[in-house]
Amino acid sequence: MKKEDLQPLKGFRDELPAERIPKQAMLGTIARVFESYGFAPLDSPALERASVLVGKYGEEGDRLLYRFRDHGDRDVALRYDLTVPLARVIGSHPELTMPFKRYQIGKVWRAERPARGRFREFMQCDVDILGAGSLLADCECLQVICSVLEALGVGAFRVEVNNRKLLNALLAHFAISGRDRVHASLRILDKLGKIPAEDVRDLLVSEVRWTPENAAGFMDCVTGGLGEAKARLPADDPGLAELEQLLELAELAGIRERVHVNLSIARGLDYYTGTIYETFLTELPGFGSVMSGGRYDDLLKHIAGRDLPAIGVSLGISRLFAGLHELGLVAPAASPARVMVASYGAETARETLACAKALRDAGLPTDSFPGDAKLGKQFKHAHRLGVDVVCIIGPEEAEQGLVRVKVLSSGDQRDVPAAGIADEVNRALEKSGATGIESG
Amino acid sequence: MKKEDLQPLKGFRDELPAERIPKQAMLGTIARVFESYGFAPLDSPALERASVLVGKYGEEGDRLLYRFRDHGDRDVALRYDLTVPLARVIGSHPELTMPFKRYQIGKVWRAERPARGRFREFMQCDVDILGAGSLLADCECLQVICSVLEALGVGAFRVEVNNRKLLNALLAHFAISGRDRVHASLRILDKLGKIPAEDVRDLLVSEVRWTPENAAGFMDCVTGGLGEAKARLPADDPGLAELEQLLELAELAGIRERVHVNLSIARGLDYYTGTIYETFLTELPGFGSVMSGGRYDDLLKHIAGRDLPAIGVSLGISRLFAGLHELGLVAPAASPARVMVASYGAETARETLACAKALRDAGLPTDSFPGDAKLGKQFKHAHRLGVDVVCIIGPEEAEQGLVRVKVLSSGDQRDVPAAGIADEVNRALEKSGATGIESG
Repeated sequence: MKKEDLQPLKGFRDELPAERIPKQAMLGTIARVFESYGFAPLDSPALERASVLVGKYGEEGDRLLYRFRDHGDRDVALRYDLTVPLARVIGSHPELTMPFKRYQIGKVWRAERPARGRFREFMQCDVDILGAGSLLADCECLQVICSVLEALGVGAFRVEVNNRKLLNALLAHFAISGRDRVHASLRILDKLGKIPAEDVRDLLVSEVRWTPENAAGFMDCVTGGLGEAKARLPADDPGLAELEQLLELAELAGIRERVHVNLSIARGLDYYTGTIYETFLTELPGFGSVMSGGRYDDLLKHIAGRDLPAIGVSLGISRLFAGLHELGLVAPAASPARVMVASYGAETARETLACAKALRDAGLPTDSFPGDAKLGKQFKHAHRLGVDVVCIIGPEEAEQGLVRVKVLSSGDQRDVPAAGIADEVNRALEKSGATGIESG
Repeated sequence: MKKEDLQPLKGFRDELPAERIPKQAMLGTIARVFESYGFAPLDSPALERASVLVGKYGEEGDRLLYRFRDHGDRDVALRYDLTVPLARVIGSHPELTMPFKRYQIGKVWRAERPARGRFREFMQCDVDILGAGSLLADCECLQVICSVLEALGVGAFRVEVNNRKLLNALLAHFAISGRDRVHASLRILDKLGKIPAEDVRDLLVSEVRWTPENAAGFMDCVTGGLGEAKARLPADDPGLAELEQLLELAELAGIRERVHVNLSIARGLDYYTGTIYETFLTELPGFGSVMSGGRYDDLLKHIAGRDLPAIGVSLGISRLFAGLHELGLVAPAASPARVMVASYGAETARETLACAKALRDAGLPTDSFPGDAKLGKQFKHAHRLGVDVVCIIGPEEAEQGLVRVKVLSSGDQRDVPAAGIADEVNRALEKSGATGIESG
């Protein structure tokens, strides 16, 4: 085949072990946190009826669908996210017990113009709580965000919360109503952070026909604190009440110091109905939100025909992984192995195979060199894999029941009894400082 | 949406938690075994250039590709397996160090006619060793098969091995040569087990123009033992030598009793060049092979332009999972949670949230009921999730620093100090016999 035909398609990527190993470790941590909250895993097909997806992501989304006719001339498309397919699953499985807490980690496809950090195939990672309208569910989503980021060790972070009902009340206060003008205004507000506040204000005027005074007042209000909103809304405003109750729950759950009100958080999608949130890593200012979501109480009625309140969190896996990278928390490794057993030929094959088995049985991922190369070449191979400890059994060692344990980085080596090999390798690993997946 | 539009596409499936939870546990076990041998994970796109895939799976395979034109009018297709994409990855990444050991778990798509147990989207799970021509690699593949099935606890199994070079020598002995006649004969031999031996013999005669005598002799030979082949081939036949050396290595590796020569194992695909194997669960006769593969030393040259020997194992995940089911080794669970903390309302929200946190911090997956339903309804919900232990904190308990721990199945309940709640819940779980994911 021609060399250019061996490249992945534009916007698609091969994930080699050096990247895949730490990413899988990250995904494993995330899944463990989700399960610690009782979220259950679910899987759904990559391919859906186009009718399920079309019209759910706006015109731009419709255009980005990988859509084609299958062998039965059905109009089908690769999924664009995990939320709309979830709504379909709920619709087709009335037996599912509510409240239903699920997580899903899977790829989605969008025919975007490829750019730095933007791909046509990427992974999404969602948790959702369906069938629970209580603010306890909102609070649990904030807890999950905190627990994930704490488990990943990203340092300080801020969960910024807002409420769509409150935003709607503020919009009404500034004389903006009607679904179209509200959504258009929120989509423009969502650009804040990417473009300056004055530009957001000007867009409200030029694109949604705000008066300049109202646009300025609204921007002052949403970029101010909760006090600004309270000053303008009646004390019994339902959005305000929800937001304040959520802060109380966050206090009771012990995460209040992580949670910050930010009335300018808008979330672009139209379907949010209450609490919304985004999350920012303090050590990576300007990096964008790594976990976001909110309450979408009407979407399931629309798609699944079931009137179920819903709230969820979506993780930007690629962005979060890139963030871990920038924070120096990703150590690439070319192999999961922590130790390699060299091959010395037929004469000591039995002892060599037994040594590898003993190490694996002791829980040490162990590579056996599958060939008969010279030892120097085998050591070089181990080094390239990031493996620093190599076991060698030549005829002399075999005869005496010994294994030679060599630390490549220091050149240290000693002959030790085969019976205690796992302990010896663990000791050598400690000395070498190389700890497999965690090593450089 | 109409109810029928909420169903997944024909041949596709939603995997609900009751199935997904044990399947993920199985996949986790399998991945751990792969990594214990030093196989590194790799991921590649679902979508490939059609030119990469077309012509690699025979005419039937070409027809079954989900193939379409993308937004840039490129001819693309969903991957049909993980082996051909691996060869492409190797071709586009000359920096990869050989020998290269990788595993990959991912979905593939084939527009097959759906049937019981046959889907259009299904998961494949492959390990491959590239760049190692040594029989040590062949032996390691057999070891991996044994370790996976031992880790899954499937009971007795047989790894049946053969060698394509030896089969070719036997075919030559029975006057069959030429690529087309050889492959056609092997594809017919591959049907043995699905159709009677006489039918295989007759097909050889009718479809590949064998003489009836040779067809009968060949069938006697391949359904006999190694002795039958030895009687017909020169002592220095290379396929025979490889097979016997592999058995010796299996002996040295301590897995000889698992490995059985079966000269009628053919493997349908054309690209195998040496050792081939299939694996059968003793307790499920007639169930078909659950792990198979072999050596394919020429495929990478063809696709990637690199002359690399290669050998691999492919797991039939769906079949293996179905096998575990039949053996009673799959316990469905609707939730990963082992314990639920009931919701008692605002008055004790702080204590309730703290209790859930303490349980999670102690490593117990814990569901918090996200609402304000009556306790009876909450107990019913926990029961449906397969959760047998529920913690309740009412105002009295809260005041005294206690938690009520209730075992639903027995009705037992006791009030215990909040400080030691995780130990108490563990004790209750032991008594109830319900152990979360492992429970019914």
